Amino acid sequence: MLILEMIRAHRPVSRAEIAKRTRMSATSIGRIVGDLIEFGLVKETDQFSSGVGRKATLLDIDVQSILSVGVEVDRNIVLIGLVDLDGNIVAEQRRTIDRQLAQPESLAGIIADMVMQLAEAHGLSPSKFIGVGIGMPGIIDSAEGTAVFSAQLGWKNERFASIVEAKLGLPVVLDNDLKVKALGESSEGAMSDQGKTALISIGSGVGSALVVEGKIYRGANNIAGEIGHSTVDPNGKLCECGKRGCLQTYIADLAMLQEAGQIKPVSSVNELFSLMNAGEAWAFNIIDRACTYAAVAVSNVVCTYNPDVIILTGDFIDSNPEAFDAVSGKLKDFIWEPFAGTFELKRSKLGKKSVMIGAAKLVLQQRLDRGLRND
Amino acid sequence: MLILEMIRAHRPVSRAEIAKRTRMSATSIGRIVGDLIEFGLVKETDQFSSGVGRKATLLDIDVQSILSVGVEVDRNIVLIGLVDLDGNIVAEQRRTIDRQLAQPESLAGIIADMVMQLAEAHGLSPSKFIGVGIGMPGIIDSAEGTAVFSAQLGWKNERFASIVEAKLGLPVVLDNDLKVKALGESSEGAMSDQGKTALISIGSGVGSALVVEGKIYRGANNIAGEIGHSTVDPNGKLCECGKRGCLQTYIADLAMLQEAGQIKPVSSVNELFSLMNAGEAWAFNIIDRACTYAAVAVSNVVCTYNPDVIILTGDFIDSNPEAFDAVSGKLKDFIWEPFAGTFELKRSKLGKKSVMIGAAKLVLQQRLDRGLRND
Repeated sequence: MLILEMIRAHRPVSRAEIAKRTRMSATSIGRIVGDLIEFGLVKETDQFSSGVGRKATLLDIDVQSILSVGVEVDRNIVLIGLVDLDGNIVAEQRRTIDRQLAQPESLAGIIADMVMQLAEAHGLSPSKFIGVGIGMPGIIDSAEGTAVFSAQLGWKNERFASIVEAKLGLPVVLDNDLKVKALGESSEGAMSDQGKTALISIGSGVGSALVVEGKIYRGANNIAGEIGHSTVDPNGKLCECGKRGCLQTYIADLAMLQEAGQIKPVSSVNELFSLMNAGEAWAFNIIDRACTYAAVAVSNVVCTYNPDVIILTGDFIDSNPEAFDAVSGKLKDFIWEPFAGTFELKRSKLGKKSVMIGAAKLVLQQRLDRGLRND
Repeated sequence: MLILEMIRAHRPVSRAEIAKRTRMSATSIGRIVGDLIEFGLVKETDQFSSGVGRKATLLDIDVQSILSVGVEVDRNIVLIGLVDLDGNIVAEQRRTIDRQLAQPESLAGIIADMVMQLAEAHGLSPSKFIGVGIGMPGIIDSAEGTAVFSAQLGWKNERFASIVEAKLGLPVVLDNDLKVKALGESSEGAMSDQGKTALISIGSGVGSALVVEGKIYRGANNIAGEIGHSTVDPNGKLCECGKRGCLQTYIADLAMLQEAGQIKPVSSVNELFSLMNAGEAWAFNIIDRACTYAAVAVSNVVCTYNPDVIILTGDFIDSNPEAFDAVSGKLKDFIWEPFAGTFELKRSKLGKKSVMIGAAKLVLQQRLDRGLRND
């Protein structure tokens, strides 16, 4: 992965240049480059390195030699994309799913159909597909490919990766949506792979994820970053989980709408923003408090992860431009001085495609780390 | 490091067994083992592997072939130990330091004197010393060897590693005390290096650290884990940093003693515990709330890091046996259900020697990762 990424970022590049940048031995590089050429990912160009010393053939990458299939599954949608080695989407399809069809077997069938249709429609041979990455909400055991618990889909202990694998005959990697989203957002060329990118998502739920030097930080059970139930006030509001003062009781969609309901019925957070903009003080109060706790969440993620980039995203932020600025403005009240200036707070760049692109990147990463050979 | 640790944990062991366990190539193992033998860390035994196939010479480790110097520096003490490859202390010395002597130049001189005296007193040649690891409180730029800020020692931007290096002529690694403490506590043979160990310390300050698969997680600026100023109540008590509701305002020594002072002067947290045990309700109230916020801290560290082990330590915990049990008992009120049973809450095993042992381990790790050759 490292060497492929190096060739991708600096192409065309010589083996000697790769050795210099990676500090790996010429022997190791020769072996890995040989494999990459054999599998058609890398090709020798007819250009030669300039500069002094022996002339060396430059290596280039064939970005569409293989494609990763990225899939986002959520409460009522499936989004599938075929993604090349540059992270560009070659083809994509979105489908709305009935709640009844969101069972593992039928959903796996839908995914398999969509992948084959996409390939056919774009004249792409499925033999180019290196694997399928799936991002979905919930607690996911990625090593086992199991959806341990997903409130959104109503699943418990479903071995979904195996089910999709059986339908498609391709390796499948399953992971939590925010984890792959963070992976997708963290990649801006090779440089960003040196960094620590945290992602915070605020919407129907609240969560975070961390990517360290291009790898998802999982913790012991792949549930690192589940900050929705971290405590931000031990004497605070009662949460559905039975505890008091969980972060999500202040900023998740439903919590805000429930509180709004004490004044009048409000059906969406967007409507709440409209009411605020129409001058309703109580709507401002609810949103303002949510932004305060969002700033607390950013500060607490900064204290624990010490990232250099934080992506602040989720429906609450992405659908309401003023929310990002409000949270950003409140940060100074919560960030401890030694952390000031250590990170950049950013919006999502990939938007609604970030889970799909991140999932495609994850399966590519895992396949390349295993040397592309079938286990 | 990996191979040395493998030999250490499974000694005596054959090259083939190492290859099986590490999944590294025979060539790489041959080269690294060759280096380790050349430097005297590993020796071939006269035993042979049993089992089928060609008989292979078994490798053993010479645990005292090299020694790491571990140093803890704090407000008024210096603790130095010579630590072998098994993590055992071969010799140690503790010295109380006047506040006036705690300046970088004079403190470096004291450390150098103590190391040379220890070597002489135990008939050890300093040529065995692989390097010096120093753990101290504050914000430390470990890559640069600089104490960026240490309130405890009153230092700002002191290049302390270079100063000690100049006095001793040995490579010096400087790091934050809690980070090396977590590294020290995380090592229980080779197995624990697969895990995620978090450490939370409560005493004059509050902080945490994370060790992932045997490596300190540093974040972008080596200040990951500084949870003392994470917000646990945005409307809470005013903190010396100017913010409200920082974790440390509820559980740091001084915060508790200040509050106690509203009733009567109390000079130490131990005295506060005595008063509680003598039946003073207000003393119980202060300690009980500190234990509540300590449980919140544990829960929030669990949510973000998802560790499999948490070491709960610091003077508040280590000096008062009832504190650990109180925090442990309150945890059920704060741990979100999916995290229940994912981690073990433990006391410190190394106690007052943990920073010293961890610092010795860190310098060993860094020296071995660079292949033992001088840069």
